[in-house]
Amino acid sequence: MTILHGYWRSSASYRVRIALGLKGITVAHKTVNLKQGAHLLPTHNALNTQPFVPILELEDGNKLTQSAAILDYLDEAYPANPLLPDDAILRARIRAASQIISADIAPIQNLRLLKYVKNELGGDAQVWARHWISEGFKSLETIAQASGSEFLLTDTAGYFECFLVPQIYNARRFEVDMTAFPRLVEIEAKCQALTAFDAARPENQADAA
Amino acid sequence: MTILHGYWRSSASYRVRIALGLKGITVAHKTVNLKQGAHLLPTHNALNTQPFVPILELEDGNKLTQSAAILDYLDEAYPANPLLPDDAILRARIRAASQIISADIAPIQNLRLLKYVKNELGGDAQVWARHWISEGFKSLETIAQASGSEFLLTDTAGYFECFLVPQIYNARRFEVDMTAFPRLVEIEAKCQALTAFDAARPENQADAA
Repeated sequence: MTILHGYWRSSASYRVRIALGLKGITVAHKTVNLKQGAHLLPTHNALNTQPFVPILELEDGNKLTQSAAILDYLDEAYPANPLLPDDAILRARIRAASQIISADIAPIQNLRLLKYVKNELGGDAQVWARHWISEGFKSLETIAQASGSEFLLTDTAGYFECFLVPQIYNARRFEVDMTAFPRLVEIEAKCQALTAFDAARPENQADAA
Repeated sequence: MTILHGYWRSSASYRVRIALGLKGITVAHKTVNLKQGAHLLPTHNALNTQPFVPILELEDGNKLTQSAAILDYLDEAYPANPLLPDDAILRARIRAASQIISADIAPIQNLRLLKYVKNELGGDAQVWARHWISEGFKSLETIAQASGSEFLLTDTAGYFECFLVPQIYNARRFEVDMTAFPRLVEIEAKCQALTAFDAARPENQADAA
């Protein structure tokens, strides 16, 4: 059986859980306890050259890393219930919006950066995280405001929403003022009403502490 | 004609220049002078909701942003000279390696973060940049060492190498010790011998200062 190595609170793991749910793919879950430093153990290298989760371990032993690459893989290997639409321009727009989160927000408010900001630079990690999340959300709110779709750019939840909902979860942990992003919050609420999103919630995972 | 709005020293613009060259697509180039703050002007919002380059403006007026999304678009809209191979697993591995650069290195050593580290936190921006570039390159060197291919995971330069060469260019600007990453340097040298990579070099652009 395919195994998702992840952690309940990892937003990148959360993205893949949603995507698997939207596509109707069942996997086994193995926890990599980030709080206990399991991602820093030498044994983790056998799964991923980076000290990160998630890793999607396929039945043939192939181990796929980086959540955005895993989402593209799932859509290519399992054509049913597509995460991305067919139109090339719309795909490009959805991927670009997703990368505002996967490149320009999430890695900057990742735990390793927060530790460096706090421990090496004596900065306030929460202020740092809030700043960069808000910068990215401003762009996304502009895109959302200009769109007439039910979700960001489509009328069904898909690829982008796999990134949005976990990022809003993180934003709330850092006490970002979400009232500045009403359309993003509206899209999030529509997502949370769907089974795939509800099942993927951090607090609904077996390893949630 | 399609227009690439970019800047000679922007590594994300550099990625798209290489990709266009590998695919044999000719575009017009318009400069967004980052040094003069042209990306911060209100007029830039008409091109991109983020204060970033590149933007690929298509003949029909569509404006595509985020370099990784642009690379995927080019491969989908122009099937000749593919950047990614057909095999879904290999595509996933190449995209994952590319995201080590596009998500876990480049945005962290981006000018906006360096300014914040220096001006808001009083940190050494060069030490910061070197640290995060080296962290990512360690993972990539491990992947490269394990591969028997001419380039990272393939025998022709493609998607991943569009990310690698600009990131090594940045690494050298920050004086990262590249002797720690011999296979990455070897792949870079093979790329630089190719016309598409040579034509895309920052110093070969019309707006190079």
